Amino acid sequence: MPQKTRDEYLSSLKKLGHRVFIRGEQITDVVEHPISRPPAVAMAETFRQAEPGQKEELFSVRSHLFNDSINRFAHIQHSTEDLINKITMLREMGRGTACCFQRCAGLDCMNSLYSVTYEIDEEFGSHRHERFVEFLEYIQSNDIVPAACMTDAKGDRSFSPSEQIDKDQYLHVVEEVAGGVIVRGAKLHITGGVNSHELIVLPTRALKEEDKEYAIAFAVPSNTKGITFIYGRQPSDTRRLEEGRSDVGNLYYGGSEALVVFDNVFVPEERIFMKGEYSYAGRLIELFAAHHRASYGGCKVGVGDVLIGATAALAELQGTANASHVKDKLAEMIHLNETLHAAALASALKGQRTPSGAYGIDPLLANVCKLNVTRFPFEITRLAQDIAGGLLVTMPSLDDRQHPEIGAYVRKYIGCKSEEEAEKRMQLLRLIENMTMGAGAVSYLTESIHGAGSPQAQKIMITRLADLESKKACAYHLCGIG
Amino acid sequence: MPQKTRDEYLSSLKKLGHRVFIRGEQITDVVEHPISRPPAVAMAETFRQAEPGQKEELFSVRSHLFNDSINRFAHIQHSTEDLINKITMLREMGRGTACCFQRCAGLDCMNSLYSVTYEIDEEFGSHRHERFVEFLEYIQSNDIVPAACMTDAKGDRSFSPSEQIDKDQYLHVVEEVAGGVIVRGAKLHITGGVNSHELIVLPTRALKEEDKEYAIAFAVPSNTKGITFIYGRQPSDTRRLEEGRSDVGNLYYGGSEALVVFDNVFVPEERIFMKGEYSYAGRLIELFAAHHRASYGGCKVGVGDVLIGATAALAELQGTANASHVKDKLAEMIHLNETLHAAALASALKGQRTPSGAYGIDPLLANVCKLNVTRFPFEITRLAQDIAGGLLVTMPSLDDRQHPEIGAYVRKYIGCKSEEEAEKRMQLLRLIENMTMGAGAVSYLTESIHGAGSPQAQKIMITRLADLESKKACAYHLCGIG
Amino acid sequence: MPQKTRDEYLSSLKKLGHRVFIRGEQITDVVEHPISRPPAVAMAETFRQAEPGQKEELFSVRSHLFNDSINRFAHIQHSTEDLINKITMLREMGRGTACCFQRCAGLDCMNSLYSVTYEIDEEFGSHRHERFVEFLEYIQSNDIVPAACMTDAKGDRSFSPSEQIDKDQYLHVVEEVAGGVIVRGAKLHITGGVNSHELIVLPTRALKEEDKEYAIAFAVPSNTKGITFIYGRQPSDTRRLEEGRSDVGNLYYGGSEALVVFDNVFVPEERIFMKGEYSYAGRLIELFAAHHRASYGGCKVGVGDVLIGATAALAELQGTANASHVKDKLAEMIHLNETLHAAALASALKGQRTPSGAYGIDPLLANVCKLNVTRFPFEITRLAQDIAGGLLVTMPSLDDRQHPEIGAYVRKYIGCKSEEEAEKRMQLLRLIENMTMGAGAVSYLTESIHGAGSPQAQKIMITRLADLESKKACAYHLCGIG
Amino acid sequence: MPQKTRDEYLSSLKKLGHRVFIRGEQITDVVEHPISRPPAVAMAETFRQAEPGQKEELFSVRSHLFNDSINRFAHIQHSTEDLINKITMLREMGRGTACCFQRCAGLDCMNSLYSVTYEIDEEFGSHRHERFVEFLEYIQSNDIVPAACMTDAKGDRSFSPSEQIDKDQYLHVVEEVAGGVIVRGAKLHITGGVNSHELIVLPTRALKEEDKEYAIAFAVPSNTKGITFIYGRQPSDTRRLEEGRSDVGNLYYGGSEALVVFDNVFVPEERIFMKGEYSYAGRLIELFAAHHRASYGGCKVGVGDVLIGATAALAELQGTANASHVKDKLAEMIHLNETLHAAALASALKGQRTPSGAYGIDPLLANVCKLNVTRFPFEITRLAQDIAGGLLVTMPSLDDRQHPEIGAYVRKYIGCKSEEEAEKRMQLLRLIENMTMGAGAVSYLTESIHGAGSPQAQKIMITRLADLESKKACAYHLCGIG
Repeated sequence: MPQKTRDEYLSSLKKLGHRVFIRGEQITDVVEHPISRPPAVAMAETFRQAEPGQKEELFSVRSHLFNDSINRFAHIQHSTEDLINKITMLREMGRGTACCFQRCAGLDCMNSLYSVTYEIDEEFGSHRHERFVEFLEYIQSNDIVPAACMTDAKGDRSFSPSEQIDKDQYLHVVEEVAGGVIVRGAKLHITGGVNSHELIVLPTRALKEEDKEYAIAFAVPSNTKGITFIYGRQPSDTRRLEEGRSDVGNLYYGGSEALVVFDNVFVPEERIFMKGEYSYAGRLIELFAAHHRASYGGCKVGVGDVLIGATAALAELQGTANASHVKDKLAEMIHLNETLHAAALASALKGQRTPSGAYGIDPLLANVCKLNVTRFPFEITRLAQDIAGGLLVTMPSLDDRQHPEIGAYVRKYIGCKSEEEAEKRMQLLRLIENMTMGAGAVSYLTESIHGAGSPQAQKIMITRLADLESKKACAYHLCGIG
Repeated sequence: MPQKTRDEYLSSLKKLGHRVFIRGEQITDVVEHPISRPPAVAMAETFRQAEPGQKEELFSVRSHLFNDSINRFAHIQHSTEDLINKITMLREMGRGTACCFQRCAGLDCMNSLYSVTYEIDEEFGSHRHERFVEFLEYIQSNDIVPAACMTDAKGDRSFSPSEQIDKDQYLHVVEEVAGGVIVRGAKLHITGGVNSHELIVLPTRALKEEDKEYAIAFAVPSNTKGITFIYGRQPSDTRRLEEGRSDVGNLYYGGSEALVVFDNVFVPEERIFMKGEYSYAGRLIELFAAHHRASYGGCKVGVGDVLIGATAALAELQGTANASHVKDKLAEMIHLNETLHAAALASALKGQRTPSGAYGIDPLLANVCKLNVTRFPFEITRLAQDIAGGLLVTMPSLDDRQHPEIGAYVRKYIGCKSEEEAEKRMQLLRLIENMTMGAGAVSYLTESIHGAGSPQAQKIMITRLADLESKKACAYHLCGIG
Repeated sequence: MPQKTRDEYLSSLKKLGHRVFIRGEQITDVVEHPISRPPAVAMAETFRQAEPGQKEELFSVRSHLFNDSINRFAHIQHSTEDLINKITMLREMGRGTACCFQRCAGLDCMNSLYSVTYEIDEEFGSHRHERFVEFLEYIQSNDIVPAACMTDAKGDRSFSPSEQIDKDQYLHVVEEVAGGVIVRGAKLHITGGVNSHELIVLPTRALKEEDKEYAIAFAVPSNTKGITFIYGRQPSDTRRLEEGRSDVGNLYYGGSEALVVFDNVFVPEERIFMKGEYSYAGRLIELFAAHHRASYGGCKVGVGDVLIGATAALAELQGTANASHVKDKLAEMIHLNETLHAAALASALKGQRTPSGAYGIDPLLANVCKLNVTRFPFEITRLAQDIAGGLLVTMPSLDDRQHPEIGAYVRKYIGCKSEEEAEKRMQLLRLIENMTMGAGAVSYLTESIHGAGSPQAQKIMITRLADLESKKACAYHLCGIG
Repeated sequence: MPQKTRDEYLSSLKKLGHRVFIRGEQITDVVEHPISRPPAVAMAETFRQAEPGQKEELFSVRSHLFNDSINRFAHIQHSTEDLINKITMLREMGRGTACCFQRCAGLDCMNSLYSVTYEIDEEFGSHRHERFVEFLEYIQSNDIVPAACMTDAKGDRSFSPSEQIDKDQYLHVVEEVAGGVIVRGAKLHITGGVNSHELIVLPTRALKEEDKEYAIAFAVPSNTKGITFIYGRQPSDTRRLEEGRSDVGNLYYGGSEALVVFDNVFVPEERIFMKGEYSYAGRLIELFAAHHRASYGGCKVGVGDVLIGATAALAELQGTANASHVKDKLAEMIHLNETLHAAALASALKGQRTPSGAYGIDPLLANVCKLNVTRFPFEITRLAQDIAGGLLVTMPSLDDRQHPEIGAYVRKYIGCKSEEEAEKRMQLLRLIENMTMGAGAVSYLTESIHGAGSPQAQKIMITRLADLESKKACAYHLCGIG
């Protein structure tokens, strides 16, 4: 079996030797650095769940390329059942980590490239698909994590890539060299980049002929010369540096994003999956966006489960669980959360085979799913904070419970029925703080808006995919017209 | 093939001879009376769509009881695919009629009784299921429409059935007689009752031992002695009586509800499907409610399609279709409508086999679906009226266009690019009026709140089904507890 | 005292002799015709409340033109207190009638013309204001009702008035004649036009020099030759024609709108308040819109009070008033309703003196008020229908209670603790039906969106008036910039 | 003039010598400690604005006790104009600081005690009011800041104060001693406590006779023996400890809350304003709550102005300001923000004189104001993050711009038209981060829910104050009943 254990993954990450800066400091071990460890461990959870005795029936799956089981995070979906299982797996991961575990963008990207390279070859008689399948086989048989790198810096947004004054504002080919090309540019918001063995780069938008040099998709190892990761800051990120880490909220896990700079990076020919086929950039992005927008109806719902659970547990400890308004608010939180999930499942159910044999998700319902994701977590958050009470933001450090002078005050006045329950209460409050206004809020709130594309992008797709003509015909028919 | 054509159905209805009162007048032909004709014709559409050359691949299905195809509205679902097809069929019907076509409550009721009679027999060794299957075979092989009769009058709501002063406030057995029983009571809000050949009666709530006499489920023909239908009024119902019917909005279709009185009605033994098994009343209702709540994510979405289509067509005629706020509002309408549908599909996808072999829908997602249905049609309505403009409610009669004195004024000032377009505009406005504040609003708005159970019922079920314990465990785990 | 009693007003209306068509029929007495009587009586209520012993301290006020008290509906506001009293009076009227009582558009129009004619004169040295004051004195001293006529037919909306192929799509001067001008065109959605003694016409939009001939404002008696009123249809409007009128819902009152056609109407010089001063058209409309948008935070709130009251009373009769979700929904209804009122009051409080001495309302807050009015009544409606229950739309006619054959059934099964309470229940349900999907919904829902300008118009004004620059400066300051 | 300058206030705070713990460390100078300095400086801004040349016409006012001007934050409101000016002043402060400036709870508390002590004396012939006025004169003539201390620890919420096992869960009198009493307990969430010269303590709920010992209101200096402040943690609080403070977002200001412990504190007789008059505890809290709930429609609106300004400025820098969806979202943010303000203004406008001569705010509208405050800032936040883009949470430290190795990358790829604009962009993003998920979110989001009482408390008051009976009467009247 080619699958890595959690620990093997973490070891491999330690040895990666990629160039990462956190708060100005170049770090050598992302697994051990207190700020980057929780994201690494969250990613590692995708390996642990596939281990025997864990949830391997969900997290492992037979490869369609060879006769062995692989991690589902490396699998090309070949049925609606596959699509559904992916969503279910993502929710499971969200429940287990309460954060962005960073491995689904790479998965969604591979599934999209699988289809699009095939379609490119069909039109151009090229060998993109063959190369991509080789790469995929390497990924699957070594249980490699690739990160998807899409969003460019974009410079002045009123200009297209080729119109930019600084051409590097969109990553592009700067030189053709023996055996490959040199590329330059940067990719923003790269989720889990620092925890990935490989980077898959793809264009960020539909392109026209004049933008041909920007129509480039490829993969390179994360430790390739010329690549630099600049770690993004998160609210309360440095609580992880505090001794005891009592106030981190989420004890184990976290997400991470980085600015990834490609400064004259060599890409070998065999790892180029698109080059110049600008007319397929839009198709690639739409496929990826649909997959990824549906993913959010898995992972964010799992995170929502944790927030709902934390809130319900807190209400019990605080003695308010039976108040009718609390019950009503919890019901609303569940309702909103399940509404998100429903659309993801439905988009999987309505998935369709692409020419390559891989399945694409239903794009209309995937966009509907994501548009709700840009909204409901904020309302779920508001309700969670409502039930949690003001102590959420006025509470001293958990360390203060042990303080020689003020510890007794804290234990007495931030109490519950017992000492132990009082401590649980404070820990749950810190978890809710983490998820709604701390490091966890990055993923649960802001990323829910912008990840996989901003709300306006969803609105545009929804209108385009809605088949308004047939709806108009229905209306006219009932008026006796046409 | 045992399926009726549209015309055969309408003929059968004409000959039914059941006792129907509309606005105080006993009518003899529900098909011809101007007020009850549109509902009859809407129901008839379920037959027409199953005719060859129409959409028979969706509307016809092989019976699991015998080797022939039947109308899907009489089918017991035996797979998630069956469940999904039902939802799809309901949306199709909604698109075609823009109203409640009244045949799904009977369908959902039969699917629930199929399971529950089986389970009753398993516990009690009785023969309820055998009888029900006989009845079902009669239904399927003759393409019979049964209406589900559930909601009792309820009297004083603070009392249980057996505590009521007037025992008839819940329909009940008043006497055991040779070969059957005599029942008395009334059922409210009976959708499509007047257009049904048979009435299936079931209890309206979970029951306790002392309510045993109310634990009665059975079927009787609609024209059984002692049964009276009292037709409910709808907004603008009498526009159908106006000469020319120019202002009815929806030219062909409508929904109908009636108060159905059972005044000492004899029920033969072989048509009794529950009698005294009070502990199964709750189970029956929950199964039915789940099926029916998911149905609303089909039919109302189809109706929503028509409203969206009417609004989009109107915006084009009025020259506002390219205004960014109009595009945004249309996108929002589509988004909300598809969100409703997504949850219905997801609840079908997650459907589960019951012991009888029939499939039940996922109750959590079905309740989530319905709770959204109690909300979004109001917002879709608001957006439709926003785009439609004030003329929606200030416009003269369409007849006025032909008036010798004022016709020229109306044609000139309620205009468009052409006479023909101006007339389309007025017709579309009337359709939107019908759907948002006329007879169609009964089904699209109020029934969306209360049909299949009111919002509070959904909130209760959602909380009960949400598995809060596992969510709490996730939260505690991330706090390092337990 | 120059004020008319309710009965004097109704008499004067009977004698008016204006040309009114309802459903194709020219009627001679708007007070007696069953469809137009409720609107006439609603308008009459503005007179009755000013009668001694009623609420004359609120409805009567001293004229600023002469030493006598007048109806506040004819008053030029000269202080924030005046502005506040107007809002309060409108709420009172809404509470008393549950409909559009049709007299505030004229009031708001007069207040705007008072200011703008003054400002025109200041720039041009003309005598518009003097003429307008003469007209106003006639209005005040005879307690005359003028209707505001603003919205033009507009033809093709992508063209300006002067670009239209049919010039009459915006009302305009067609000929200058001795002692006045001839105008032609039509005004849509004219509220209370048929119940008004005079019509005040004003432009519908800001105008440029090329649209000069459309820059016309004037007043003419409603019975002027060439003027035709074509009555708009409303949902369930013909219930008023039914014998017994049992199902009308609102027993006494209603609103009305008409298409008003001006077919070569002569306007005498002394009644022209703007002619050619195109640069003041925008100013006039903005002043009027602001006044009128704030008005909606009075009248609609009063109507909301009735809906809340009806719902609360119904919950009591139905025995659900103590359910926590019912209490919560009622609280929400009240909350939304008061939020509407608050903005109206605040816009009055922040009102400012115009050069004429009259007070204008704060335009930012008036637009905020109105934008909420385009939303909340739909949610209040949804909550009312939720509490009301499905019977709202499935209930037989109230007449059926007395029916020899089915009356006993209706009384028994649509019951309450007593016969009398059962009848109250049905009447309250009819009232709620009227207000949420009957004739009353015209005013409470659709008119709440479009009356005084559609939501997009409010959004544009809100942005324009928000002083974004000072807000940006605050933000930059806190960043240490600027 | 008795008013302190900003610097005099800060000096006085330095010398206060009260016992404050921040993260386990007892600090000696709240003005200089990096974490507590921004809150101190925010409070100081209330003094600076009253300085000559600033906004003294708004921030200074003549005392009703003596012939001199005082800071409005120490003023007893004696007219609706006073009430309105207070709201306006709070918005101004919110605009200037983008945080909780912590001085209004004390102000609202003094206004409430002024009325209630008067009413107590009227009933009991006591001298509470006289003592309170003496205290007030001290406050006003020395420009002293008092903090309001209300929320008790509450222990087990299912028990009343006197039923608690640990009596100290509600602050109470433990002993009567010569010249005063000894009290014990703790107050939670005390806003600005550490920046206040005095603490005013009042009960947290309505009390019954058996809770008499908890019916205690008094004032003591913050540095009184036995008082300990335990500082609450906030998201990203330690960014203030980072060298350069580049990522704090709000460069100058912040809010603060503390747990304040009263461990056998002596209160002299002359500073006791309620003792045993349990029947007035509810009245005192309702008056305070109403004042304070309206306050939120001032301060939070000012903070909202900053967030709107930051978002608008950012959209300009990012080149998206003219996108129609961005304009629409900004309009919505403004609309929601002004809706909050409107209700505060309206509650002031409808304020009423209490027997003491002081004015109370309209409690219905104040509760309506606050209930909206518990909702809209979350939606405004969501819209701000939508416009801001994902960089909000993925951006490196601002320090990284100057980094020798990665600085060039950051400057190039997180760019704008110019270096300077790029830096502005990053600073604005940090400000938005601070306000929506950093230290500023404490005040703008969570405190908006719970400060001045949680949403459910508002719902209860709204229903109680809504005069449902008169609304029912209106509805019945229109049904022809009663």
